[in-house]
Amino acid sequence: MTDILEALNWRYATKKFDPNKKIEAETWSKIEEIMRLSPSSFGLQPWKFVVVTDPKTKEELLPLSWDQPQITDCSHLVVMCRRTDVDETLINHYIESVAKTRNQELSELNHYKEMILGFADRLSEEAIDQWASKQVYIALGQTIAACSLLQIDTCPMEGFSPEGYDKILGLQEKNLASVLLLPCGYRSDEDPYAKASKVRFKKEEVILEGQQVD
Amino acid sequence: MTDILEALNWRYATKKFDPNKKIEAETWSKIEEIMRLSPSSFGLQPWKFVVVTDPKTKEELLPLSWDQPQITDCSHLVVMCRRTDVDETLINHYIESVAKTRNQELSELNHYKEMILGFADRLSEEAIDQWASKQVYIALGQTIAACSLLQIDTCPMEGFSPEGYDKILGLQEKNLASVLLLPCGYRSDEDPYAKASKVRFKKEEVILEGQQVD
Repeated sequence: MTDILEALNWRYATKKFDPNKKIEAETWSKIEEIMRLSPSSFGLQPWKFVVVTDPKTKEELLPLSWDQPQITDCSHLVVMCRRTDVDETLINHYIESVAKTRNQELSELNHYKEMILGFADRLSEEAIDQWASKQVYIALGQTIAACSLLQIDTCPMEGFSPEGYDKILGLQEKNLASVLLLPCGYRSDEDPYAKASKVRFKKEEVILEGQQVD
Repeated sequence: MTDILEALNWRYATKKFDPNKKIEAETWSKIEEIMRLSPSSFGLQPWKFVVVTDPKTKEELLPLSWDQPQITDCSHLVVMCRRTDVDETLINHYIESVAKTRNQELSELNHYKEMILGFADRLSEEAIDQWASKQVYIALGQTIAACSLLQIDTCPMEGFSPEGYDKILGLQEKNLASVLLLPCGYRSDEDPYAKASKVRFKKEEVILEGQQVD
């Protein structure tokens, strides 16, 4: 599909995936790249994307996700995580990555680094966690939209036990905390929601013209 | 542009827009539709998108946005807002919109409605605000990715005074709170960042295989 509006109208939160249809490696590699390219505040990328395809692991995760069948039926289950180590080490690593990619001296990036450090210093630990979580939501939005162009079905999910997921997947030890799930795959012919009309408020309800008020 | 990866590599957080290039009405209408189609938890769409094009209003907003020139130079400035009225009235309105769109009886949707009401009841007011803000980040992600396909430049911004914006635009009276800015337009030839290499961590740093750990 090449028209973005057509693609966005085609997509829906897939309730039933076809368990027999798997995303092939070449397409999956594109989706990983789409996730990797997601924008984030300062470009800091405070996230990792954990991809689960192993049937046994999916079975373990099922009861931690309200037994929603997308978990086991999907082709690739992405557990979108925030990093729990948004600290000076990560910021230094990022600045080094900028310098290397753009052939810059580290000293040229000092001002930028101080700005990010200052931002992180001003926030409480909880506020940093919330900030990092929000960045993961950007990645979710980009990935869903881009998948629709590749005609890959997705189902964004907030309803699961992050603590349970973190435990089963050993995420804490990796300095990660699960934020969102994105099962990816192909819709089943039996999913009645695939044919249901998309529900959105009218344009005039959600798009407003902004003018200064007195 | 039709290739999503090409488009995502083309995009960058535009630091300098060409103030003389405006997005034409037909394209802008598509972007509004892209925002409107954004996915959200329960499909509840707890957002509105306030579009500022008036030069005088943009000038007023500039000092509330660290004087970043994107505010005044962009073609359309979108102030992405969360609704502050995520309550039973909104949930009822949404359920009515589902029933109308899908030709269903309201009674068929009772279970779904109770589920959303129960979710909202369990959250503190602050947690609802955070939840609604996160939905706005999904819309941001979708809109940035989709704009890149239309070759429309954007610059997602968290750095501004939400209170100041809310006041200038009279958002509180509309039951809205500003969360994010998305200036949209066309990059200036003079923006050095337009030619800078994109900085992202390596794939193996951000994509992990998830397996149950013992």
